[in-house]
Amino acid sequence: MNAPETLRRLAEERPLVHHLTNYVTVNLVANVTLCTGALPVMAHAVEEVEEMAAVASALVINMGTLDPEWIEAMIRAGKEANRRNIPVIFDPVGAGATSFRTTMPEKLLSEIDFAAIVGNTGEIATLAGMQAEVRGVESIGGDAKAAAIKAAQNLGVTVAATGPTDYVSDGDKLLAIENGHPLMGRIVGSGCASTAAIGCFAGADRGTNVETVAGALAYFGRAGEVAAEKADGPGTFEPRFLDALAALAAEPNLLEGKLKIREEEVG
Amino acid sequence: MNAPETLRRLAEERPLVHHLTNYVTVNLVANVTLCTGALPVMAHAVEEVEEMAAVASALVINMGTLDPEWIEAMIRAGKEANRRNIPVIFDPVGAGATSFRTTMPEKLLSEIDFAAIVGNTGEIATLAGMQAEVRGVESIGGDAKAAAIKAAQNLGVTVAATGPTDYVSDGDKLLAIENGHPLMGRIVGSGCASTAAIGCFAGADRGTNVETVAGALAYFGRAGEVAAEKADGPGTFEPRFLDALAALAAEPNLLEGKLKIREEEVG
Amino acid sequence: MNAPETLRRLAEERPLVHHLTNYVTVNLVANVTLCTGALPVMAHAVEEVEEMAAVASALVINMGTLDPEWIEAMIRAGKEANRRNIPVIFDPVGAGATSFRTTMPEKLLSEIDFAAIVGNTGEIATLAGMQAEVRGVESIGGDAKAAAIKAAQNLGVTVAATGPTDYVSDGDKLLAIENGHPLMGRIVGSGCASTAAIGCFAGADRGTNVETVAGALAYFGRAGEVAAEKADGPGTFEPRFLDALAALAAEPNLLEGKLKIREEEVG
Repeated sequence: MNAPETLRRLAEERPLVHHLTNYVTVNLVANVTLCTGALPVMAHAVEEVEEMAAVASALVINMGTLDPEWIEAMIRAGKEANRRNIPVIFDPVGAGATSFRTTMPEKLLSEIDFAAIVGNTGEIATLAGMQAEVRGVESIGGDAKAAAIKAAQNLGVTVAATGPTDYVSDGDKLLAIENGHPLMGRIVGSGCASTAAIGCFAGADRGTNVETVAGALAYFGRAGEVAAEKADGPGTFEPRFLDALAALAAEPNLLEGKLKIREEEVG
Repeated sequence: MNAPETLRRLAEERPLVHHLTNYVTVNLVANVTLCTGALPVMAHAVEEVEEMAAVASALVINMGTLDPEWIEAMIRAGKEANRRNIPVIFDPVGAGATSFRTTMPEKLLSEIDFAAIVGNTGEIATLAGMQAEVRGVESIGGDAKAAAIKAAQNLGVTVAATGPTDYVSDGDKLLAIENGHPLMGRIVGSGCASTAAIGCFAGADRGTNVETVAGALAYFGRAGEVAAEKADGPGTFEPRFLDALAALAAEPNLLEGKLKIREEEVG
Repeated sequence: MNAPETLRRLAEERPLVHHLTNYVTVNLVANVTLCTGALPVMAHAVEEVEEMAAVASALVINMGTLDPEWIEAMIRAGKEANRRNIPVIFDPVGAGATSFRTTMPEKLLSEIDFAAIVGNTGEIATLAGMQAEVRGVESIGGDAKAAAIKAAQNLGVTVAATGPTDYVSDGDKLLAIENGHPLMGRIVGSGCASTAAIGCFAGADRGTNVETVAGALAYFGRAGEVAAEKADGPGTFEPRFLDALAALAAEPNLLEGKLKIREEEVG
C-alpha cells in the first residue's frame, strides 16, 4: 500500500484510533490523528480501555508521562487489541532516561505484541540493548540506522528510528525516509505526532509492514516541508503543520513525486 | 437575556467558571473561557473541588477522559454547586461509546441537578435512551432535533444537541442555531469548547434557559464563521477562532444581525 | 550574568529542565522551555521523579492542578534536587484560592529549599501572609512590589511577583521589569510560561539571584512585545510569542537596549 492510497482509504473509512498517551502532547496527537483522516479517542480508565480498544482500528501506546495506573491500562488495552488482531503501535518516549523508563518498555514488550515500535534514536537504541545517550526525552546523536535494524531483529517487529533521516526496518528490509524539516524538532511532540500518523496508517492498512510505516513518516515529513514555507518560527509552524497534514490528506495526489523513500541494504 | 447583553456582563463581572474537564482539550477550554470574558479554573483534587465550586459562578463537568477519582470529584463539586444554586453544565463526551460511558452519565445525573446538558447528537441520543451511532467520542449522523427534545423531556433539563445545526430545548420550547462553519468540526475539542462558552453565559446569566444556551452557541458559531475567513486549514483555524471569540466578546455589537437563532415547533 | 549571555549559554549547553506542572498549560510550558533553549522533561511518577530530577539542571514545581499524589512526587523531586544543589523554582498557582492551595505551599516550603518563587501578586501576597484577593487562579489587583519584598524577606528566597510591572527581590535588592504586553495576560498559562523561562535561566546560571530571575522575565516580556506586533488577538498571539522567544534566544543581541530592568529601593 502506498501513502496516497492509504490516505484515500483513511478519508473514506475514518477509522477510530485509540491513544493511551501523555498529557504533554495529547492535544497535538489528537489533532494530527484528525487531520490525517482518522478519529482519535483517548479513553484511559481501566474500566473502559478494553472496550474502547476493541472497537478501534489501531491502538497507540505512548509512554511519555507514564505511571503505574497507566501501565495497567496500557497492558489491558494492548492485550485486548492483540486478541482482536488490531495493530498496536508503541512509542517508548524517554526509554533509557531513567531505570523506570528502561524497565517499563521491557514489561510492555513482554505483555503485548506490538505491530510497530517508533522512537528517536536513543529510545530505539535503548530497546535494542545498545549504548544510547538520552537526555530527558531527547536523543543526543547516535546511529539511527543501526538502532532500527538491531531493534527490529532483536524484537521481531517493525521498528522506526526517527531523526533527520528516519529509518524503518523489520530486520530484513530497510527503508530510509528523507522527508522532513528542522522546524519539526523545534516543537514539543513531533515524535509523538509522527507515531500518531503511523497509528492512522496502520488502522487503514490493518497492519504495519515497513512500507506502511515509511509511507506515514514520508507523508508526515512532507507536511513539515510544506508547513515550513509559511512558518516564521516554531510557534507558527505548529498550526501550519496541521494545515499541511490536512491538505495532503484531502488531496493525496499532492504527494506524488514528493516522497523521498529509498531502500537500503540491511548490511 | 440576549447574547450581546450577556457578553457585556461577562466583560464587566469576569465570573469564575470552574471546569472539571478532560486533559485532551483542557487548554482550549480554558482559553475559550478566557476569550469569552470569564476566568477559568481547573482544580480537580477532592481536597478542594467543593471549595472552588462554591466560589464559582458556574461549574462545567466534561467527562472526556473520565476515571473513578474524577467521578468522585465531579459529584462533590456538583453537589456543592447545587447547594449554592450555581448552575452546573454537563458535557457527556463519548456517552454510548463504552458501557462505562453509558453508566457514568446515569450516575452523575442521579447525583447532580444539571442546569444544562450539551453534547453531540449521538451523546444526547444516548442520554435520551434513543438509538445512537457513536464512534469513540464522535457522533455519526442521527437526528439532533429529536434527540434534544426527547432528552430535555426525559431528564427535565435544558439540552443542546450540537451539529451542523444546533438544537436547544427544555422540552417545551425549541431553538435552532444555524451559525457555525465546517472547520469547527475539524479541530479536536470544538464540542468541549462550545460547552465552555455555555458555562460562561450561564455564569453571567445565573441560569441556563434555552435563550442563554442558544445565545452562547450562536456567538460561538459566529466566531467560527469569522475565523474561517482567515484560516488556511484546521491548524490556523484554532488561533483565529480564539481571536474571533475575543473580538466578538470585546465588541458584542458586531453580533447584531449575525445570530441565526430561530424558534421551531417541539411538534 | 545578563540575559543575552544566559541565552547564549542555553543554546550551547541545552540543559535539561524537569517540570512537575499542571495539565492545563503543560504543552505551552514545554514549548517555552524548548524555544528558550533548554530541553523540557515532564516525568511525574514517584518511581522516577528523583532519578529524573537528579540529571536535570533545574526543577520547576508548578501547583496549578495539584493533588496528593503529585505533592508526593514534588517533594521527592525537590528533595533530590536540593541534595544535588540543582535550583528548584516554585510557582504557587492559585495560592490563597482554597484552603488546600494555602496549606500545600506551606508544606512544600517546609520540605523543599526553593531557589526562587514566582507567582502573580495575589499568590505571592498569600505566601507573604498578606491580604490578597484571588479569584480561582487569577490575582485581582494588589501591591506586587510590597508582596515580592515581604515574601522574599519572610521566606529568605528570591521572589518574583508578576504583573503589568514585575518585581523581583531577595529581600535586600529589588528589580522592577517593565517589559511585556497586555496580550500576555489574555492567554492561559503566561504565568506558568514565565516560570518556565526562569527555570531555563536558572539551569544555565546554576542559581537564581535577582539578576537571573529579572533577566528571564525581561526576555520573556520582550518576546511578548515582539509577538504583539504581529498578533490579531490572543489566539494568534500565542504562536507568535513562541516564535519571538525562539528568535530572541537564537539572536540574543536583539535584546540589547530593549530590556527594561531598573533597580528600586527596598524601602
